[in-house]
Amino acid sequence: MSSVDTADRRHRLGVDLPPPDERESLFTTAVLTGSLAVTSGFGPYWDGRHIFIGKVGSELTIEQGQDAAWISALNCLGALRDLLGSLDAIERIVRLTGWVNAGPEFTKQPAVIDGASSLLLEVLGERGQHTRAALGMASLPFNIPVELEVIAEVRNQS
Amino acid sequence: MSSVDTADRRHRLGVDLPPPDERESLFTTAVLTGSLAVTSGFGPYWDGRHIFIGKVGSELTIEQGQDAAWISALNCLGALRDLLGSLDAIERIVRLTGWVNAGPEFTKQPAVIDGASSLLLEVLGERGQHTRAALGMASLPFNIPVELEVIAEVRNQS
Amino acid sequence: MSSVDTADRRHRLGVDLPPPDERESLFTTAVLTGSLAVTSGFGPYWDGRHIFIGKVGSELTIEQGQDAAWISALNCLGALRDLLGSLDAIERIVRLTGWVNAGPEFTKQPAVIDGASSLLLEVLGERGQHTRAALGMASLPFNIPVELEVIAEVRNQS
Repeated sequence: MSSVDTADRRHRLGVDLPPPDERESLFTTAVLTGSLAVTSGFGPYWDGRHIFIGKVGSELTIEQGQDAAWISALNCLGALRDLLGSLDAIERIVRLTGWVNAGPEFTKQPAVIDGASSLLLEVLGERGQHTRAALGMASLPFNIPVELEVIAEVRNQS
Repeated sequence: MSSVDTADRRHRLGVDLPPPDERESLFTTAVLTGSLAVTSGFGPYWDGRHIFIGKVGSELTIEQGQDAAWISALNCLGALRDLLGSLDAIERIVRLTGWVNAGPEFTKQPAVIDGASSLLLEVLGERGQHTRAALGMASLPFNIPVELEVIAEVRNQS
Repeated sequence: MSSVDTADRRHRLGVDLPPPDERESLFTTAVLTGSLAVTSGFGPYWDGRHIFIGKVGSELTIEQGQDAAWISALNCLGALRDLLGSLDAIERIVRLTGWVNAGPEFTKQPAVIDGASSLLLEVLGERGQHTRAALGMASLPFNIPVELEVIAEVRNQS
């Protein structure tokens, strides 16, 4: 898939990746090790703030959780683009881990994280196919509803 | 260790791996990247349903949690067998992450996940030795008691 | 960075890594696979016992949580040293995952895990830069306040 293809696909979807994250922190947004690119945990941060706050199933609906997962996945892709120069460098997504902030009775973590899985498939096509774990957390930083990490395999540069 | 050895060992243990998972989903059950095979998160799904449901320590006993972990580990091995063709392709297990669905007072996650560690060692012998994290979750999908992921190193094919 | 540099840096910081862990268990403390070294989950175990117990934000302060994270990170580095012979074998830290034992209202997981991130940067300098996820757990083994895992890239041995 060429660079034009990925850009085209994103354009058709109306997907804009976020600008590089310049917040100060003790950790980095993504690292390349061998052929693997690993992101930090990302939440639904957009335009300078977390645009969803609260627990899914009580303070937020499933649909809002899905939207938060969608945006969190955009942030993971943004971190990979910043690391690699382009999403075209991604051979495939290896892993999506989705942490959902929810109470003890919540059972629909998979539906929430589908919002992130869908984005990966929409933007990257079959390169977006991935393994996944969806988990329910007692709490998350800043009371965000979703946090995600992505591990991607990078194309052979030679 | 030859293919016969692993099959023999499984036979002696009475361990049957599950049939391939044909449920529809937005993610895959396992991925091979370089020499690493990574599974999705698996629960105690068997014969078309999750055969344990509920939180360990309140709705289920530790022993039931261990059995659920044992079955979840079988499912991880089944996913690796489907991906690799045979468990003989496994050089060693690198990582077992065990998520236990439990209340805030629960402290016996290691005992529960021992049910999965034991299976890996029984089926794979010293190739089953692994690093591990055992964690207590506020909630899990479908209210399953345990979810597991496994990362394995695959034998050099050349 | 030479061996002397790392030892010097640790000495200046007054950082002593723990002795090898000889507790019996069904899993190992760290594994090398390809160029990646992966630790098991470690808590604030020191001198034969977990020196912090309880949930952060209710039973323990943020500062105590940070200290627990600092000690847990020392244990991860100790496991890597035992595996690799020396911390000088570390090319860089790839990943720190920090699980904080806390109630549903807790939101300061990043501040707690900064205690671990700081140690990695102090001991390893720029080789200690890492990706990170900080998560809130319903419960942890033995009611420890923090559990950590570290993934490191190992230097090319040739």
